[in-house]
Amino acid sequence: MAEQPEKNIDEQVAPTIAAIDLGSNSFHLTLARLQHNNLQIIGRLKEKIRLAEGLDEQHMLSEQAQQRALDCLKQFRHRLHGLPQQQVRAVGTYTLRKAKNARQFLQLAQQALGYPIEVISGTEEARLIYEGVAHFQLSKHKQLVIDIGGGSTEFAIGEAFEPVLLDSLQMGCVSYSQKYFSDKHLNDENFERAITASQLELLSIQDLYLREGWSLTIGTSGTIESIVEICHGIGFKSNTITLDCLLTLKQQLLAMKHFDAIVLDGLAENRREILPAGLAILIAIFQTLKISSIETSPAALREGMLYELTGIEKIFDIKERAIKGLLNKHHVDMDQARRVNQTALVLWQKVARHWQLDDDQSRLILSWAARCHELGLNINFSKQQKHGEYILKNTDINGFSLQQQQQLALLVRSFRRKFPLHRFDTIDNKQDKQRLIRLARLLRLAVLFNHRRRDFDSPDADISIDDQDTLVLTFSKGYLEQHKLLAADLQQEQYFLNKAGLNLVINSE
Amino acid sequence: MAEQPEKNIDEQVAPTIAAIDLGSNSFHLTLARLQHNNLQIIGRLKEKIRLAEGLDEQHMLSEQAQQRALDCLKQFRHRLHGLPQQQVRAVGTYTLRKAKNARQFLQLAQQALGYPIEVISGTEEARLIYEGVAHFQLSKHKQLVIDIGGGSTEFAIGEAFEPVLLDSLQMGCVSYSQKYFSDKHLNDENFERAITASQLELLSIQDLYLREGWSLTIGTSGTIESIVEICHGIGFKSNTITLDCLLTLKQQLLAMKHFDAIVLDGLAENRREILPAGLAILIAIFQTLKISSIETSPAALREGMLYELTGIEKIFDIKERAIKGLLNKHHVDMDQARRVNQTALVLWQKVARHWQLDDDQSRLILSWAARCHELGLNINFSKQQKHGEYILKNTDINGFSLQQQQQLALLVRSFRRKFPLHRFDTIDNKQDKQRLIRLARLLRLAVLFNHRRRDFDSPDADISIDDQDTLVLTFSKGYLEQHKLLAADLQQEQYFLNKAGLNLVINSE
Repeated sequence: MAEQPEKNIDEQVAPTIAAIDLGSNSFHLTLARLQHNNLQIIGRLKEKIRLAEGLDEQHMLSEQAQQRALDCLKQFRHRLHGLPQQQVRAVGTYTLRKAKNARQFLQLAQQALGYPIEVISGTEEARLIYEGVAHFQLSKHKQLVIDIGGGSTEFAIGEAFEPVLLDSLQMGCVSYSQKYFSDKHLNDENFERAITASQLELLSIQDLYLREGWSLTIGTSGTIESIVEICHGIGFKSNTITLDCLLTLKQQLLAMKHFDAIVLDGLAENRREILPAGLAILIAIFQTLKISSIETSPAALREGMLYELTGIEKIFDIKERAIKGLLNKHHVDMDQARRVNQTALVLWQKVARHWQLDDDQSRLILSWAARCHELGLNINFSKQQKHGEYILKNTDINGFSLQQQQQLALLVRSFRRKFPLHRFDTIDNKQDKQRLIRLARLLRLAVLFNHRRRDFDSPDADISIDDQDTLVLTFSKGYLEQHKLLAADLQQEQYFLNKAGLNLVINSE
Repeated sequence: MAEQPEKNIDEQVAPTIAAIDLGSNSFHLTLARLQHNNLQIIGRLKEKIRLAEGLDEQHMLSEQAQQRALDCLKQFRHRLHGLPQQQVRAVGTYTLRKAKNARQFLQLAQQALGYPIEVISGTEEARLIYEGVAHFQLSKHKQLVIDIGGGSTEFAIGEAFEPVLLDSLQMGCVSYSQKYFSDKHLNDENFERAITASQLELLSIQDLYLREGWSLTIGTSGTIESIVEICHGIGFKSNTITLDCLLTLKQQLLAMKHFDAIVLDGLAENRREILPAGLAILIAIFQTLKISSIETSPAALREGMLYELTGIEKIFDIKERAIKGLLNKHHVDMDQARRVNQTALVLWQKVARHWQLDDDQSRLILSWAARCHELGLNINFSKQQKHGEYILKNTDINGFSLQQQQQLALLVRSFRRKFPLHRFDTIDNKQDKQRLIRLARLLRLAVLFNHRRRDFDSPDADISIDDQDTLVLTFSKGYLEQHKLLAADLQQEQYFLNKAGLNLVINSE
C-alpha cells in the first residue's frame, strides 16, 4: 500500500507499455516504461509453450498446444490488468504464420489475452529485432543481428537505426530438433544432417550478406544467449564467442551421446532439448557467413516492439517508406496514385465522423490502398485488382502485420468492377468488417473520380450519408449532363453496389 | 483434273499454309502460299458461329454454340486435307478466353479440326493483327490499327513492322449488341448507352495512345469493313471515312427505328444484327482517340498468322524479346538466369534423344523456364515458385499462346521444393504431360547445380537414363564427399521426387 501513490504519479508521467510475443518456443510478456528517453523494463513473464511442436504434418495446431497457449495468455491478461489498447502490442511469429488453423486459434487467443494479436512476417520480425538491438545500444559499427527462434531464424544487417538487409529463414531450434534429433542421440550423423540443412537454407542469403559486409555480429534471444552462457561455463571466459568455442561445445555434447545425459553449467532444464539443434544452426551460420566472433544483446523482438510503442511517428515512417519502395518496385504511376489518394482523403474527411471512420487507422489504410491500387498493373491491366491483391498478400512489407496487409489487399481487390462483398467475410471482427466495406466504397469513388487521369479533374461533388446509411453524391446543376462519362461511370457503380446490396444515391442540386 | 499436275508442282515450290481463327462472331479459314516473298491467298472459308452469343451469365458455352462450332471445324478439317501440322495454325480469341468450359470444348474442337488450337490473349491478338496489316502494305507512317471483333476490340500503334503499343478492350459488336440493343430498337438511348460504355472502356488507353501519337488510322476485319462499305453506299465516295460519315449512318439507322427495318446497300444480311453496336463502338473510338479519318486494310489476324507461319525465326525473336522484357520488369538476376539456362541446356542435350525431348519446342520451353524461374522473387523469396507461376499465368506475353504460358508457368511452379505432380494433370495431352514432367526434372537439377550462384560452378556430372526411366547422375570419385552441400541438396531432391513417385539415382564412379 505504501508504494501505491508514488506508482500512480509515475504512471502519469510515463505510461506502462507492454509487448507480448507468441513465439514458436516460448511466450513472453515484457512490461516497460519510458523514463528519460530510456526504456525501463518493469516486468517480464515467460512460459515455454513449444507451439511449433504442436504443428502436425498437415500444419494444424494441436488441441493441447492451443490449450497451453490459451492458459498462458489468460495469465498474461491478468498481468496486463486493463492497460489501454494503444499501450499494448502482441505479435505471433513463425508457427502462427504456418498453422493452417491460425485464424480460428487467433480468435480464441485474442479473447483470452483481451488484446488484438498481429501475425508478422519473418522480415518484419527481423526488422523489429534489429530495432530492439539498435535502440538498446547504439553502435558505431555496421552490424549483423542474428536471432535463432523455435521455427525460424532472423537476420538483419544495418547501421545505427537503419536496417539494410532483413531476412528470415525457415530453420529453428524446435523444428530442427524434431527433424534431425528425433532419436535424441548426440552423434556425428545427426549433427551433420542438421548443420548441412542449415547451410542449404543459408545459401539463399550468403552472397548477398557477404557482399554487403558488416563488422560486428550480435546474437539475441534464448538460444544464442544460452549457448554463449554455456561456452563461458566450459571455460571460454571472453565476452565474445568464436567458432572454436562452438565446436568444442559440440565435441562435449557428442561425448554425452544422448539428450538425457546432457549436463552443462548455465543450461536451463527447459533448454536441454533444443540446445543441440540450436548449436548446429549457429555453427552453420558461423561457417556460411564466415563469422569470427559473436556478442550478445539482451534486447530483441519485444524491445523493438516497445521502442515503437513509445513513438508512433517512427512506425508510420517505416510503413511510408515500405509502401514507396513497393510502388517503385512495381513501376506504379505515382501521379495517378497521388490524385486518387488526394480525392480519397477529401471524401473521407466529409464522411469520417458519420461513418465512424475518424481514426488514424482508417485514414491511413485508405490512403495506402489509394496509393497501392494500381500495383497489379505491373502484371496485367486485365484483372489488375486481383493482381494487386496477390502482390499485397504475398510481399513482406516492413512495419505491417500480415492482417494489416490482408486488409490492404482486400481494399485493393475491391477497387473496381464487382463489389466482392463475400470477400469481407474473412474479417472476423464485425466492426473492422463494416469499416473496411465503407473504406472500399470511398476508394472506388476516388478511383472513379480520377478515371481520366488528369490533375484538378476530380469533380467537386458534395458527399453525405443519409439515414439508411447510403452514400449520397450531390452534383451542381447541369454538371452530370456536361460530364456524361462520369454519369455513366456512376451509374455502373450504382449497378455494382446494388448487386452487393449496397446503395449509392446520385443527386443534382 | 486438268489443273492437278500444275498445283502439285506449285506445292513443291511453296507449301500451302493455313490460318484458322475461332472468333467470337465468325470462324474463318484462310489458305495461302508464299510466292516471290508475297502471300498468295488461295482459299477462304467463313462461317458465322456467334460463339460469344453462346456464353451464358456464368460464362459457360452453350451446347448449341459448341455444336455449331464443332460442325464448322469438321468442315474446315475436310478443307485442310491433311496439311502437315507445322503448316497450320489455329487460334481462339475473346470467347475462348472467357468461357469457363473452354478447356473441355477445346479438346473436342481439336479432335474435330485435327490440329492443335491455341487460345491467345487480347494483346497477342492485337500483335498478330498488326503483323498482318504491316506486312500486307508497308507504310512509311506511324499507324494505329483497330479491329472491332465480336467480344473484344484490338488496338495497336506501330511503325513499319514494329508494334509499340498493343491493347485489347472488352467491348465487341456481339457482346454490346446483346447488352445495349437487346430490344432491337434503334433509338438515341440505346446508342447513347453503347457509345458511353465504349468511351468508359477507352479511358484506360486514351492518354497513352494520344501521347504516343500516330498519323494513319487503319481499320480491319468485318465490322469496320462493312461500316466503310455502307458509308460508300450512302454517298460518301472517298476512300477514307470520317466521323461525319459515321454520324450520318447513325442518323439513318435512328430513322429506321428497329433492327428489322434495316436496309442498307452493302450490308450483308448476317451483319444486320451487329451493325448498330459496331457503329457505336467505332463512333466512341473516333471521339475518344480524336481520329479524323480511317482507311481499311484487307489483312488482319489470319494474315498475321500466315506471315508468321512463313518464317519461324521471326516468331522466335518476338518471344525472345518478350521474355527479356518480362525479366527486366521484374528485376530478375540475369546472371543467375544465364547460369541456370546454360546448365539446363547441357543436361537437356545429354538426355533429349532418350527422353524424346529432342524437338525445338522442348528445348525452347526449358530454356525460357530456366530464365524465368526467379520471376517470383520480385514478390517474395518465400513461395517464389508460386509467385513466378502467378506472374506467368497472368501476364500477356507477346508471341505466346495462353496454353504455352500455362506450360511455362507449370515448369516454374515446379522448380523447387515439393514436386507438384498432380498439377501436371491440367495438361490434357498425355505426351505433353510426360514431356513437361521430364523438363521439370531437368530444370530442378539445373537450379540445384547453380545453388551457389557462381559462374563455372555447375558440377560436371554425367547424366543418363536407365531402363526404368530413372535419371542417373554419376559424379567423379570423391566429388560428392568434397561437396557436402550439393550431396545434401541432391538427397533432398531424391526425397521430393520419391514422394511424387519419381526416381533419381546418384552414383559415384
